Amino acid sequence: MSVTAPQGFRAAGVAAGLKSSGAPDVALVVNDGPQDSAAAVFTTNRFPAAPVQWSRQVLATRRLRAVVLNSGGANACTGAEGFQDTHATAEHTAAELGLGAVDVAVASTGLIGVRLPMDRLLPGVTDAAKALAADGGPDAARAIMTTDSVPKTTVVQRDGWSVGGMAKGAGMLAPSLATMLVVLTTDASVPADVLQAALKGATGVSLERVDSDGCLSTNDTVIAMANGAAGVTPTAEEVAAALTEAATDLAMQLLADAEGSTKDIAITVRNAASVADALTAGRACARNNLLKTALFGNDPNWGRVLAAIGTTDAAFEPDRVDVTINGVTVCRGGAIGDPREDVDLTGRAVTIDVDLAAGTEQATIWTNDLSIAYVHENSAYST
Amino acid sequence: MSVTAPQGFRAAGVAAGLKSSGAPDVALVVNDGPQDSAAAVFTTNRFPAAPVQWSRQVLATRRLRAVVLNSGGANACTGAEGFQDTHATAEHTAAELGLGAVDVAVASTGLIGVRLPMDRLLPGVTDAAKALAADGGPDAARAIMTTDSVPKTTVVQRDGWSVGGMAKGAGMLAPSLATMLVVLTTDASVPADVLQAALKGATGVSLERVDSDGCLSTNDTVIAMANGAAGVTPTAEEVAAALTEAATDLAMQLLADAEGSTKDIAITVRNAASVADALTAGRACARNNLLKTALFGNDPNWGRVLAAIGTTDAAFEPDRVDVTINGVTVCRGGAIGDPREDVDLTGRAVTIDVDLAAGTEQATIWTNDLSIAYVHENSAYST
Repeated sequence: MSVTAPQGFRAAGVAAGLKSSGAPDVALVVNDGPQDSAAAVFTTNRFPAAPVQWSRQVLATRRLRAVVLNSGGANACTGAEGFQDTHATAEHTAAELGLGAVDVAVASTGLIGVRLPMDRLLPGVTDAAKALAADGGPDAARAIMTTDSVPKTTVVQRDGWSVGGMAKGAGMLAPSLATMLVVLTTDASVPADVLQAALKGATGVSLERVDSDGCLSTNDTVIAMANGAAGVTPTAEEVAAALTEAATDLAMQLLADAEGSTKDIAITVRNAASVADALTAGRACARNNLLKTALFGNDPNWGRVLAAIGTTDAAFEPDRVDVTINGVTVCRGGAIGDPREDVDLTGRAVTIDVDLAAGTEQATIWTNDLSIAYVHENSAYST
Repeated sequence: MSVTAPQGFRAAGVAAGLKSSGAPDVALVVNDGPQDSAAAVFTTNRFPAAPVQWSRQVLATRRLRAVVLNSGGANACTGAEGFQDTHATAEHTAAELGLGAVDVAVASTGLIGVRLPMDRLLPGVTDAAKALAADGGPDAARAIMTTDSVPKTTVVQRDGWSVGGMAKGAGMLAPSLATMLVVLTTDASVPADVLQAALKGATGVSLERVDSDGCLSTNDTVIAMANGAAGVTPTAEEVAAALTEAATDLAMQLLADAEGSTKDIAITVRNAASVADALTAGRACARNNLLKTALFGNDPNWGRVLAAIGTTDAAFEPDRVDVTINGVTVCRGGAIGDPREDVDLTGRAVTIDVDLAAGTEQATIWTNDLSIAYVHENSAYST
């Protein structure tokens, strides 16, 4: 049921003709209240798309009534005209819904550096407003897909309240959420500051630790809305736990659908001096093309793991580092461990455990292999 | 003529059976004097291979009489036993040549995490010593090849003296020289401190700015030897210029032979606040898989250039950045510029000029595209 699983939300997804395929490309999510707490996390890219610039302003109020999203065009690097297009989209959406533009966030995804066809987008928004329904969540999730092969939705059910969500993304997953659009909804009563803290914590350990190809988009947006329609006020911890569960579920779906990938790889760095060190070492592995191609070739190439973490400044002694791939400790003390032939890499799930022997902290980074299909898709698809 | 172009050097390349293909895999370069100035630059990877650890000690004296190199095995991450193997190789080479082990540097390339077959390597060294010849440079260059499709050699001729060189590398080119073995020779008379400064400067603007896939190997080694056999003492500036010319020639050969690449890409960042900023922005582009796959697909995707530099902390205002691809300014002021259709990407050479409008410094980073063949080669070849 996606974003409409919680009470008091309506959604829609329609085809406005932004995509040449004729597939749905405009989504609308509306919060019918009674409350309108909102929180958001945006890309840290220094070329934020026009919708990110707009939504960042809107979300400064920590209140939101609607999110309008489109695929088929990122509206990034489009200058002042592009920002005017986003503003017009928010104005038009607000007019259709009887709101003010400041109540409406905008999110876009698609090709960078091309103006949106407003003569198609605005009628599409009108159609979406007419199609709004309490069971419209799945339609909205479909309308934000780009190269995604399946829509991504989640529901986390609690006692008397729930969290719903949808996500778009299949490639360009990176720290700070590259080309990822996520909307989370809850019918719990949550003050905006609690919601923001919970969202930041939830994305920090889930969506921001998915690093499929190390690239960081101009459009990443994660928005959460809480309306209190369920009449329940969970604790801050309960909100944080539910949002983390929902965001993690969506993150794993994004990982599984990453463009052209054949492996889901969980890199856990253990016994690090700090979480920051664990993340640094994990990301160095996740971004090492030679390691990622080796895994595509079912080669448990632990030398490439060491070569990757050897480029970082994480605290460790080289002759104390162990590497375990799918349960086999192929590297012990920075040197040859158990036989690499014992590692079974035929399945999709791969676990790489790096023991730095330098402390007590740990973190997991999720990534994909680098496959021929990845290159094929990303050389043919202009984003 | 490779490393034997300058007077007073002999070299050889023989097949010792380290490679299953039976191709040459042991090379020897000997400096017959009268002088023995030497300089070196090594990988900064924190898991330096045994030969790097050995040669770093040897080069501390800034004197060197011979370099023994092998392909077919990196001797990296092989623990204390691996270091003993390197030491034994140096001892054996020294004994064959009537030198001390401290006069002999060792360099290795190939699979990480596997011991070298010393019962083949040492007889190979004996064979190489017997085969030493004043025209043996090309043989040596062939013996250090791994996935290289052609040997790489260079000669820089000056008035009465010259610089010769050979290099190995085809992939894993990165800052700090990943999986690159280079030997440079000169018959000029050059004090060791002048040679070291010249080598560091030369690699800093050439080999270290080739960033084919962002990976950094455990074995990178660049060694320079000067013997004064020509009886000429050039100025420090003349030495630096000749070494830079030789290193740049070899760097461009490495780039052209990078595994599976179809494009040689020169990314020049202009009008940066500092050279460091220009390098940071250039490397961010060189390591962006989405940009590199787009170029493989002949797509002048300037949005991915902006997205890449937007992840850096280089000084710039987003709305003042221009991007020119093969002469067409497709992005002007951080927004849409001239038509992308005007960009011709059908050739192998690609130039990307990024104007940061933030200062007066500039730097060029060279890289390759990310091709299907790259993935194929690196998933099939265990290094």
